[in-house]
Amino acid sequence: MSDSAIRFNERTSIEQVEESTELAPRFDERGLITAVTTDAQSGELLMQGYMNTEALRLTIMTGEAHYYSRSRQALWHKGSTSGLVQKVEQLLIDDDQDCVWLRVNVAGGASCHVGYRSCFYRQIPVGREFTARQHQGQIELEFTDTDKVFDPAEVYGDAPNPTIL
Amino acid sequence: MSDSAIRFNERTSIEQVEESTELAPRFDERGLITAVTTDAQSGELLMQGYMNTEALRLTIMTGEAHYYSRSRQALWHKGSTSGLVQKVEQLLIDDDQDCVWLRVNVAGGASCHVGYRSCFYRQIPVGREFTARQHQGQIELEFTDTDKVFDPAEVYGDAPNPTIL
Repeated sequence: MSDSAIRFNERTSIEQVEESTELAPRFDERGLITAVTTDAQSGELLMQGYMNTEALRLTIMTGEAHYYSRSRQALWHKGSTSGLVQKVEQLLIDDDQDCVWLRVNVAGGASCHVGYRSCFYRQIPVGREFTARQHQGQIELEFTDTDKVFDPAEVYGDAPNPTIL
Repeated sequence: MSDSAIRFNERTSIEQVEESTELAPRFDERGLITAVTTDAQSGELLMQGYMNTEALRLTIMTGEAHYYSRSRQALWHKGSTSGLVQKVEQLLIDDDQDCVWLRVNVAGGASCHVGYRSCFYRQIPVGREFTARQHQGQIELEFTDTDKVFDPAEVYGDAPNPTIL
């Protein structure tokens, strides 16, 4: 079966989108839907990415996370280079169907191209912490994780870094 | 202190953005950064939204979640209408600093305008489940939560529904 065989419904009403069992995802003007990926065991947020229609269809069909890479402008089977494939335990969609939530198990335990387990390895002080620590409005990020799971240079070699300045 | 007193750094290098303690968020062409909000206790994904510079600054200063509403095109102090304020326990930023993760405690326990605890109350069958359940590429969403925490009509009255078709 080709991936185009999965049918997404037309969006016809708020009730259909919010309260029914019809899958009617909203792809934005770039053709993308937001994807949020957490560790199925720990609940930790691993990454936030995007899917086009093909990536969402392949994720549904294969049970492995596929994204659309904005920096490479290409379909991206997560783990195809690094081996750190994400097995989707559960896939959920939000009220207005413009965001999907992937609860995954990651082979190798890492999801971040920098080498950390999660892409979210630094925190921003907020509220009282902000007030106590800011100096003339300047604040410092604090590392919550300092142990890299892998060495990016070893895994990715000379591949261009996906971060856009 | 005015919110404009919080300084975001210019983005100068990949090393600065990914590996340093400098806060240098990337706002996209719409002036927005993606925000992912989970329940600090359960780890459940509550919602995905956006912040502009003002919303991020106010979140940092006050310790309460502020977003930018795309449908209303306005700053949005979450809970200002419903009372369901989100207290930020931890605020993290990702490798390339274009997404923030809010770990929150929600007064009243609900974060979804439809009335559910989480915006993610329906799942999409994937992999084997998809194969078993699809019929000519058509699949049905499955409700994972059917108990609304509040009645939207009571809380929001006649306010326009934020869902965009």
